[in-house]
Amino acid sequence: MSDFDWSVRVYYEDTDSGGVVYHSNYMNFMERARTEWLRSLGFEQDELITHHQCIFAVHSMQITFRLPAHFNDALVVKSHIERAAKASMDFLQKIYRNDELLCEARVKVACLDATRFRPMPLPSFILMEIVREC
Amino acid sequence: MSDFDWSVRVYYEDTDSGGVVYHSNYMNFMERARTEWLRSLGFEQDELITHHQCIFAVHSMQITFRLPAHFNDALVVKSHIERAAKASMDFLQKIYRNDELLCEARVKVACLDATRFRPMPLPSFILMEIVREC
Amino acid sequence: MSDFDWSVRVYYEDTDSGGVVYHSNYMNFMERARTEWLRSLGFEQDELITHHQCIFAVHSMQITFRLPAHFNDALVVKSHIERAAKASMDFLQKIYRNDELLCEARVKVACLDATRFRPMPLPSFILMEIVREC
Amino acid sequence: MSDFDWSVRVYYEDTDSGGVVYHSNYMNFMERARTEWLRSLGFEQDELITHHQCIFAVHSMQITFRLPAHFNDALVVKSHIERAAKASMDFLQKIYRNDELLCEARVKVACLDATRFRPMPLPSFILMEIVREC
Repeated sequence: MSDFDWSVRVYYEDTDSGGVVYHSNYMNFMERARTEWLRSLGFEQDELITHHQCIFAVHSMQITFRLPAHFNDALVVKSHIERAAKASMDFLQKIYRNDELLCEARVKVACLDATRFRPMPLPSFILMEIVREC
Repeated sequence: MSDFDWSVRVYYEDTDSGGVVYHSNYMNFMERARTEWLRSLGFEQDELITHHQCIFAVHSMQITFRLPAHFNDALVVKSHIERAAKASMDFLQKIYRNDELLCEARVKVACLDATRFRPMPLPSFILMEIVREC
Repeated sequence: MSDFDWSVRVYYEDTDSGGVVYHSNYMNFMERARTEWLRSLGFEQDELITHHQCIFAVHSMQITFRLPAHFNDALVVKSHIERAAKASMDFLQKIYRNDELLCEARVKVACLDATRFRPMPLPSFILMEIVREC
Repeated sequence: MSDFDWSVRVYYEDTDSGGVVYHSNYMNFMERARTEWLRSLGFEQDELITHHQCIFAVHSMQITFRLPAHFNDALVVKSHIERAAKASMDFLQKIYRNDELLCEARVKVACLDATRFRPMPLPSFILMEIVREC
């Protein structure tokens, strides 16, 4: 599939006194992009919780910070799903400022039962849609 | 009553690219202090939710930022309860770096029903303890 | 002038375990809206710092939280400048979910010298543009 | 060496509407612990910037989230430096609630020139102290 692109503007809240985006905030940008990718496929996460008891949580992540982003930068998060398993999804996500790669991560997202926080299978209607994207 | 003092260290996560603590983070420091003040009186907020369906939420706030705090500063939040009403508490909170007043706020905290988010009376055993502090 | 509208989506990062947007995050939403309002007038804050040594900082705020926002809500921040003085601007900002007013604030923003963090006059080309908006 | 332990309390600001600590906030807890570890060795990071133009930045991280932390939990971050190189340090950090391992990460921290954000050698007086800890 092609990447899913999501634009993010850097505000003061995202930066630190080193003059750059605080490192953990890139993970927030990546989650915004995954949320919008799901929305682009027709899935609203609040409805998945309410109607399917299904919540997504990051299981693990390998992240590398290559270049810093600064206040007021316009960034793009490029997200690509590499693999969908029974109860998890693997993403490759990269954050760019124009052509410069600033940060990249492999992210494993687990599907959890929203009340007990235990792994549960991805609802089939989601899995079908995602497999089509892989 | 005397003030309740709570120490806060400024980490990178609290600052912004202006080189100072990001303004809304002072509100987080103030909430930490209110939480620890409640704890010092013997009240754990997770138990108040579980056993009394009582959750505290900021209703309104008047806040003034006088001087900026910087990375690595050691701050003290001084909290004083001015008034306890049936379903709310009024705090005066001031943040200091040594003798310098950096930020001060009047904060009205409401007691809400944890499931419906509607005002509910403060549990009497809390109100009694708080009135003693006023 | 008419209000300046800026849309904000609520992501997990914005919420807390009470199930609602964490109170200080509304202040972040409001700053995003002020930043975008300045941008809509043609002013980029990173350039104002670099070329005019001018940085904006919240001086004080009166904020009231009326109704909670939830995960995945689509909000609109309506911003209105009420008054521009020599070295500060007063905003009235309101956050809506459809027709529901969730939060409103009066915010005084000071113009500071970016290196010494002392008040300085608003650059005249900004003041002229803002006065036109009042 | 033995681990360096740093206590962290979970406040509302750290949680999300899933009822647990928001994933990227564990990275903030880990940075607080590294900062306090450096302080315990006698190094204040604001002085390292001012006097040695040396700033630390996370270069990369492998992080796994095993169990969720909740509002009001008392956590301990255990930090261990595995390796110090010319211009970087490798940490193993684990977050516990009592005996339960909640989260663990391998974190590579680079030493950067504070103005140009390019790698620079760790100041020798820091490297000597750190090697002693490995």
